[in-house]
Amino acid sequence: MRPSVMTAEEIGKLLHEEFPQAFYPGCGLTLEDIHYGDVRVRRDFHEDHIRPGGTISGPTMMELADFAMYVAVFSAIGPQPLAVTTNLNINFLRKPTQADLIAHARLMKVGKRLAVGEVTLYSDGSDEPVAHVTSTYSIPASR
Amino acid sequence: MRPSVMTAEEIGKLLHEEFPQAFYPGCGLTLEDIHYGDVRVRRDFHEDHIRPGGTISGPTMMELADFAMYVAVFSAIGPQPLAVTTNLNINFLRKPTQADLIAHARLMKVGKRLAVGEVTLYSDGSDEPVAHVTSTYSIPASR
Amino acid sequence: MRPSVMTAEEIGKLLHEEFPQAFYPGCGLTLEDIHYGDVRVRRDFHEDHIRPGGTISGPTMMELADFAMYVAVFSAIGPQPLAVTTNLNINFLRKPTQADLIAHARLMKVGKRLAVGEVTLYSDGSDEPVAHVTSTYSIPASR
Amino acid sequence: MRPSVMTAEEIGKLLHEEFPQAFYPGCGLTLEDIHYGDVRVRRDFHEDHIRPGGTISGPTMMELADFAMYVAVFSAIGPQPLAVTTNLNINFLRKPTQADLIAHARLMKVGKRLAVGEVTLYSDGSDEPVAHVTSTYSIPASR
Repeated sequence: MRPSVMTAEEIGKLLHEEFPQAFYPGCGLTLEDIHYGDVRVRRDFHEDHIRPGGTISGPTMMELADFAMYVAVFSAIGPQPLAVTTNLNINFLRKPTQADLIAHARLMKVGKRLAVGEVTLYSDGSDEPVAHVTSTYSIPASR
Repeated sequence: MRPSVMTAEEIGKLLHEEFPQAFYPGCGLTLEDIHYGDVRVRRDFHEDHIRPGGTISGPTMMELADFAMYVAVFSAIGPQPLAVTTNLNINFLRKPTQADLIAHARLMKVGKRLAVGEVTLYSDGSDEPVAHVTSTYSIPASR
Repeated sequence: MRPSVMTAEEIGKLLHEEFPQAFYPGCGLTLEDIHYGDVRVRRDFHEDHIRPGGTISGPTMMELADFAMYVAVFSAIGPQPLAVTTNLNINFLRKPTQADLIAHARLMKVGKRLAVGEVTLYSDGSDEPVAHVTSTYSIPASR
Repeated sequence: MRPSVMTAEEIGKLLHEEFPQAFYPGCGLTLEDIHYGDVRVRRDFHEDHIRPGGTISGPTMMELADFAMYVAVFSAIGPQPLAVTTNLNINFLRKPTQADLIAHARLMKVGKRLAVGEVTLYSDGSDEPVAHVTSTYSIPASR
């Protein structure tokens, strides 16, 4: 696979500078495997994410998918913290188990104005996706 | 407008019983106007929701929209805490201001298996929507 | 309501010049009510659109919704035939009757790069929507 | 790969019986590769599908994606012609060339009530997708 434009360390540093309240040591998010337009991110299981029925909440999954897309955008176009989501569509497929969530994001298009990708979410240890997301990011013109 | 199947108080009580970690006195969410399939929910502004550029984060908006749809489902079919989102599609339209977020959810279909609705999000004090959501909930067969 | 940037006649003329195979006298599409970012379009009922179960086909509804959004974009930004759909999301709500389809398109955002709108589809004579669409058009930079 | 519940011939026969006006010898649609929940469908290039800018029209792509999902549903649950699309989300990624369109549909979930899949569309001879679709079908209870 083509290497990422930024290393996992560089992306982590940028995220921590830009979102200190969301991405910090011990926040539970790990950048596990970072290639150009193809990244894997892990969210540690935490009981705060549980909803009725014992499943992880939908917003927790949406947040992780959006975060993974954001990382994938960095992996392809470099440090652009002002890139913003314009559209996100999620289909919830299965009840996640009470385990870490894994997000695999893959860009399908990297244009001058828009980046479009899909994110598949898994419960750690399972091959069956728990949710599937497609998302579009708008890339600042100043690029 | 047709009255809600459950009052705002009954919905609030149910939410608190089912999601004590998310809905509790002081959590920042208010059920403001509850009719059958047509509800308005407010989320107090909180600086934790800010992302680079000074805007409220996308996941904060997605979470509020999903919550408002959940309340709208209760308003139409009564206490069904195991109703689950199967699809959510969001378009981000404008940068929210640093103000409370208002979600207006309206069901377009209440079927035996599926409820489909749209949610428009506003910054308090503005008429221009900051985001628009459509969402589908699956209704348990046991109903 | 604010008047359209182009009249219904001007839009019809442009459509006929650009898509002679799709929009021509007798094609079954009528521009009924054209305001700025708010348009109503009718598609005559035709038995070719029926699918099993006696309902109008999904692609017929998607095509009409996309067409109505295209007209709504013209109503707001003028003659831009190279505007292209980047995203379209449709929820099918009810079985249409064997009647004309009415599409009511309304833009929620008209930006420099993107226009975002929603389209509600009805069977003529009914108030209950048969489908709901949100869609994004990309606007050429040359504008 | 797991074999399809119906052969390509059986699916073609069913489509012709149920949609004689859409699927017939010479209609331009070919079922090329049919496995369980994983199908490839081809649409012959036809100049009627062209829109301004020389590209194949969006509705042509949406119709093909919806058709491919329908075939994928048959491949997994057998002859259920009354299965209906409840949601379809499409991202247009690149301008197709003036060539046949290939749709690769893959189911991500086959539940009792809902089947969810994704469809990637290509111009014949290219590896870069021209559009990506996710879609949900509702499966009749009588199954």
